[in-house]
Amino acid sequence: MGETIQSVERAAAILRLLASGSRQLGVAELARAMGLPKGTLHGILRTLVHVGFVEQDGVTGKYRLGATLLHLGSSYLDVNELRARSLNWADGLAGRSRESVWIGTFHEGQVLVIHHVFRPDDSMQVLQVGAHLPAHATALGKVLLAFDPYGEAPLPLAACTKKTILAREALHQELDLARARGWAADMEEFEEGEVSVAAPIKDGRGVAVGAIGIRGAVERLAADGRLDMDVVSYVRDAARAISRDLAR
Amino acid sequence: MGETIQSVERAAAILRLLASGSRQLGVAELARAMGLPKGTLHGILRTLVHVGFVEQDGVTGKYRLGATLLHLGSSYLDVNELRARSLNWADGLAGRSRESVWIGTFHEGQVLVIHHVFRPDDSMQVLQVGAHLPAHATALGKVLLAFDPYGEAPLPLAACTKKTILAREALHQELDLARARGWAADMEEFEEGEVSVAAPIKDGRGVAVGAIGIRGAVERLAADGRLDMDVVSYVRDAARAISRDLAR
Repeated sequence: MGETIQSVERAAAILRLLASGSRQLGVAELARAMGLPKGTLHGILRTLVHVGFVEQDGVTGKYRLGATLLHLGSSYLDVNELRARSLNWADGLAGRSRESVWIGTFHEGQVLVIHHVFRPDDSMQVLQVGAHLPAHATALGKVLLAFDPYGEAPLPLAACTKKTILAREALHQELDLARARGWAADMEEFEEGEVSVAAPIKDGRGVAVGAIGIRGAVERLAADGRLDMDVVSYVRDAARAISRDLAR
Repeated sequence: MGETIQSVERAAAILRLLASGSRQLGVAELARAMGLPKGTLHGILRTLVHVGFVEQDGVTGKYRLGATLLHLGSSYLDVNELRARSLNWADGLAGRSRESVWIGTFHEGQVLVIHHVFRPDDSMQVLQVGAHLPAHATALGKVLLAFDPYGEAPLPLAACTKKTILAREALHQELDLARARGWAADMEEFEEGEVSVAAPIKDGRGVAVGAIGIRGAVERLAADGRLDMDVVSYVRDAARAISRDLAR
C-alpha cells in the first residue's frame, strides 16, 4: 500500500472519536485524545464543518457529527448489494417466524446491522440499522466469526449478561459447533430474556459476506429451555435463499 | 472563516460523488468529475479505503461508499436531540392518525429525514431515514422553507408529479399561507395518490429546527378533496408538544 494522506486520516479519526463515547467534544478534548496541537485540529475541524460532516454547538462551541453523514450512510445502504438482495427474504422470515429479523456484516471486530425488520406486531421497537453489536455475544456475530475468514473477536470478551461467553476456549468451541451445524444461537448472552438464531449468507465463492437472524423472547423461542427448531429451519432457509441470489 | 484543508475537502467531494448518481465510480470517472489528475485522486482514495469510508470492488476495481459511513450516520442519529425528543411523540402521532410519520430537518436545500415511523398496519414499507426529499414538493419541506430563516428551495423547482408547484411566485404564496396557518400540506405534489401534512418544530428561541408530518393515501386523508382537519390538528399537537420539550 502506498502513502496515505495525513490530514484525511486525521479527519477520519476525529469523526470516529465523535461517534464514540461522549459524542460532543471540544477542541482541547480532541487534541488530547489525538495527541496533536490544538492549532492542527482547528484547520481540520473548520474544514469538516464546512463540508457538513461536523456541526458546532452554538452555545457550548463543542463539536458533534453532522447531518451529511446520515445522508452518506443511507446512500451506502442504497448501493449495498447484500441488503438489496435480502429485503424480500428478510420480510418473509419475519412473517414466518413472527420475530424481528436482522442482517449484519463484520465491521471493525463487531457486527454492523445493515437491515432490521420489526417483529410484525404493534409493539414499540427501535430501529438498529447502523448499530454495532458485540460479535461474541450474538448469533449473527458467532456466525460471522465462524464463517468469515477475517472474523476475529476483539479481546478481552466483554460481558453483556451473566450468560455471555467470556473464555476464549469456550468461544472457540462454540464457533466449531456453528461451523459443524451451519448456524449459531445466543441464549440470553446479549440481552437477558432474549434469544437469537442466525445463519451465514455466502457469496458465489462460498465466502460468508453476512449473516441473517432472528431475535425474540426466550419464552417464545426456547420455551422449555430448548430452541424451537422450526424457527432455526426458517432462518437457514432464508440464508440459503439469499446466498443463492448472491451467487447468480 | 480561516483556511480549509484541500485534501479533506477533496475527500468529502469524492464521498458526495459516490453518494449520488451511479454510486460506483472508477478513478478516471472521479478525476473527470473533479477536474483533477488521477494521481492526486489515488492518494486520497487509498486513504479513504484505509479508514473504511470507501470500498473498492474486487472485480471491477471501482469505488463505492464504505460501511464505516453507515455506522457514523447512525451515531449522528444517536446524539441528535431533536430526534431523541421526538421519538415518543412520533409514535403517538402514528397511533392517532393511523398513518406513517416523518420528521425532517433542512439540509443542503432539501429535507433530510431523521425519523420515520411506519403506518401501523402490516403493509410493506421502506424506511426512509437519511433520504433527501424535495423541499418545495412536500409538506415537511414547505414548513421548513416557511419557518426556517435559512430555508431556500433550489431553483429551478423540479416536477415530481403533475401537481408539483413549479412557479416561484406560487410557491411564495404557498409559504405565506403556511406561515399564516402554522402548517402546510402537499396534495399529490410529491407522489401521485399521496397527501402529506406537516407543522414546524421550534426550539427555545422560536426558530424552526425541524418539522413533523404524516403521509398517506389521498382517499384516506382528503376523501372529498378536502383535508381531514382532525389529522391536521393531531400533527400540530405533536409539533407543539415536541417544541415545548425542546424549549425546556
